[in-house]
Amino acid sequence: MMMRQSVRSSGRRLAQLRLPLTSQRAFAVAVDISSPLVANEPQGPTIKTAIPGPAALKAKEEMGRLQDTRAVNMMVDYESSIGNYMCDADNNYLLDVYAQIASIALGYNNPALLKAAQTPEFARALMNRPALGNFPSKDWAKILEDGLLSVCPPGQTKVYTAMCGSCANETAYKAAFMYHQAQKRGADASFTEEELNSCMKNQAPGSPDLAILSFSKGFHGRLFGSLSTTRSKTIHKLDIPAFDWPEAEFPALKYPLADNVEANKAEEERCLKQVEQIIKTWKAPVAACIVEPIQSEGGDNHASAGFFHGLQRILKENKVLFIVDEVQTGVGATGKFWAHEHWQLPEAPDIVTFSKKMQAAGWYFNNEKLIPNLPYRQFNTWMGDPVRTLQAKILVQEIKKNNLVEHTKKTGEYLYGKLETLAEQFPKHLASLRGKDRGTFIAWDLPSGDKRDAFITAMKQNGILMGGCGPRTVRLRPTLTFGKQHADILVAAIGKTAKEMPL
Amino acid sequence: MMMRQSVRSSGRRLAQLRLPLTSQRAFAVAVDISSPLVANEPQGPTIKTAIPGPAALKAKEEMGRLQDTRAVNMMVDYESSIGNYMCDADNNYLLDVYAQIASIALGYNNPALLKAAQTPEFARALMNRPALGNFPSKDWAKILEDGLLSVCPPGQTKVYTAMCGSCANETAYKAAFMYHQAQKRGADASFTEEELNSCMKNQAPGSPDLAILSFSKGFHGRLFGSLSTTRSKTIHKLDIPAFDWPEAEFPALKYPLADNVEANKAEEERCLKQVEQIIKTWKAPVAACIVEPIQSEGGDNHASAGFFHGLQRILKENKVLFIVDEVQTGVGATGKFWAHEHWQLPEAPDIVTFSKKMQAAGWYFNNEKLIPNLPYRQFNTWMGDPVRTLQAKILVQEIKKNNLVEHTKKTGEYLYGKLETLAEQFPKHLASLRGKDRGTFIAWDLPSGDKRDAFITAMKQNGILMGGCGPRTVRLRPTLTFGKQHADILVAAIGKTAKEMPL
Repeated sequence: MMMRQSVRSSGRRLAQLRLPLTSQRAFAVAVDISSPLVANEPQGPTIKTAIPGPAALKAKEEMGRLQDTRAVNMMVDYESSIGNYMCDADNNYLLDVYAQIASIALGYNNPALLKAAQTPEFARALMNRPALGNFPSKDWAKILEDGLLSVCPPGQTKVYTAMCGSCANETAYKAAFMYHQAQKRGADASFTEEELNSCMKNQAPGSPDLAILSFSKGFHGRLFGSLSTTRSKTIHKLDIPAFDWPEAEFPALKYPLADNVEANKAEEERCLKQVEQIIKTWKAPVAACIVEPIQSEGGDNHASAGFFHGLQRILKENKVLFIVDEVQTGVGATGKFWAHEHWQLPEAPDIVTFSKKMQAAGWYFNNEKLIPNLPYRQFNTWMGDPVRTLQAKILVQEIKKNNLVEHTKKTGEYLYGKLETLAEQFPKHLASLRGKDRGTFIAWDLPSGDKRDAFITAMKQNGILMGGCGPRTVRLRPTLTFGKQHADILVAAIGKTAKEMPL
Repeated sequence: MMMRQSVRSSGRRLAQLRLPLTSQRAFAVAVDISSPLVANEPQGPTIKTAIPGPAALKAKEEMGRLQDTRAVNMMVDYESSIGNYMCDADNNYLLDVYAQIASIALGYNNPALLKAAQTPEFARALMNRPALGNFPSKDWAKILEDGLLSVCPPGQTKVYTAMCGSCANETAYKAAFMYHQAQKRGADASFTEEELNSCMKNQAPGSPDLAILSFSKGFHGRLFGSLSTTRSKTIHKLDIPAFDWPEAEFPALKYPLADNVEANKAEEERCLKQVEQIIKTWKAPVAACIVEPIQSEGGDNHASAGFFHGLQRILKENKVLFIVDEVQTGVGATGKFWAHEHWQLPEAPDIVTFSKKMQAAGWYFNNEKLIPNLPYRQFNTWMGDPVRTLQAKILVQEIKKNNLVEHTKKTGEYLYGKLETLAEQFPKHLASLRGKDRGTFIAWDLPSGDKRDAFITAMKQNGILMGGCGPRTVRLRPTLTFGKQHADILVAAIGKTAKEMPL
């Protein structure tokens, strides 16, 4: 293993990562689940202080004069962080299996990304930021084709770019509403006087009463439209006005799955019936239904492929658009590039939204009718960010070159097996283990939220940074370069922590 | 004047700009309104083809297979664009007085920005993008202090960072709603069971029926909450569900102002009475009122400082938060850093939102009670973008170093004087000229939308890229490096176009 090299100049240090190209190439041929892109990482975590340590506390206090710091988890030294290891302000190195809420694909200070970032091409994209809808770069089509569109979900051919996950979902909702009204209006009909006048007053029929259906425990963002479809936690929703949009129950599967086949099947059928019932009876027409392949913020809730087949069938029969929210599940972590590929649907969903690991945000689609009948109906100043779109291109190229989706699939299988064994030893610490055959997108429950929080805190002191979700779940969201060596460190730390913290 | 230098390598060209440092320094002392940062620009526009030319048409066609191109105005060669000149796909150089819908502060390929963009600091910020609310960089406070917070509007001390103008406004609305409910609840009261249960169903009292008041012709963004306060055009609003939030009329001033003093005063008083009436009688409590200092998308509609003083008084008396939307007006273009500084309010507005020219987005505030009582109530994954925050820091430093706000004030005075003279010659082409003493934030009307569009198209062929707004207005939104030499070219082209296009 190569040693980590640092270049110091005038007090600043740039982590220099060098790839062992031969092992990379070897990896792409015969999948070796040791991580392919982390040759210069530390061999393991190093914890020197209590976390937070004195430097972190000081930095947090400084920040606290200017911003709300109550959600701060770590104060980070991004210059020294490397690969799967986050370095904090006190020079503690933690193995990071949370990766900025699932949004870092290739690890910290990835050399290919850092190299690209310092090219004139990136500098220009950053500093000459266009109003993309009006003044796109002459090579914009090629940037899309080489990047975002080179990883289109099956059946999708076009992309709408946006700024973040929330606005990806919200612009998808807008497309769904405009589509719904266009279908109702018919091919040749234009807007009525009444529509033109009433929309300026936020009144129907111009601002129609239409709904997006979402599922209990789902999370789709926190702006006003997306928050009206988010059903994760009260703290996300309290005191914020919301649209009167309906909620269907998401199946509550029982684990282990093999012991609960019939009960889970019945549960999924019950929820699908509810979907159909709501669509047929809701006080306003339902234009679209949005769902995550795995409900991530809501507690890593899974449903079977059969459930999603059934959902698609019901939506199609009722002319409700099917939006799959891949903001957290997309870009390889589940062992397929898009998590919904696991379902093998008979046809593509209408819209697939993305953000996080892609760093660029937006949605894929195929049906041209999702482009409104007039320009400027789906429009804003920036309409995405070209430098993030370039970044997505490099990310995607690195993922392909290093076969990281297949790598994550194999690593996940290895890790899941180890965790199953550990769950036998510590059944209360690793209850309802889930995410089998879903790459490293793995989660489990603790007996309560407090115990879960205590477990995560104790894991931090044992060198692992992990995240929670739902009322009492631990979720793993490592980078795509997370490999066998990291899995072994993680599993050992979980065992150690479980021993230290009897339940 | 130095000549423009280009470095060509493998078919790509990076515009290399060198600053004449001595003239810069001279400028900072005795304001010379020739532009200080554009030494390597072309001497004027060069139009070689019809616009769009053959290369632009081809690039647009390629893009059209992947995205909606009906709003495309130009296909741009950002590599060759320089300073105030946009180069299109056919190598036409246009003087750009629209600047990406008012969002480019320092011109294309600004050397200070390009240099900063290629540093390891920027590369790391771009590629190690944190979940800022959880994992800020240990030096985050300093980045804010040296950048965004160094240009706080008077009376503001804190900043909430966001991704774009729409989500800056929407998170400001969320802050206002949570503040409103907290005031109503009182200091010690916690959430009721009913609130906790009902919010998960999007129902009151947990998802309360509260409103944001906005003005006719205002524009505040196009996501669901912001769009419910946007009142600019039907095309922005049709078919999208909206909150039932109220609209007050924005004053319709008559020009020239000097001839319409009494009528305009009465008009402003009428609108203020309406504001008060709405707040007192609207079906839901009004938590905040949002207004632009100059309604930009809606047609560059101005009101007097007295109007905004009156507005602030009414809002304060009725405990309604005052949000000033400086997304388009902020960052120097009006001859003050923030346009609302022109009003000299007795105290600061509660919230000032920003985006566009700042490249980073968010809102300034002072009252700590705008931070909700619990963490994670105002939260999302990215909470802004560190690389854009770094960019804002460099932008702000360059603006200060080169005295660009004062420069823009003086340039605006010069330009406005020339346009007044031109308006005497072509009163139909330059009706209701407005923006006196508002830097280069100048606009005028043509007799109709069609004539305005024809005028803008003709101006393009005469070498000027300009933008429209409202039903029949032309708006000027040049960069802050726009100077006397550009003003002269612009005025000559307007005169030429007006002669070619009799009204």
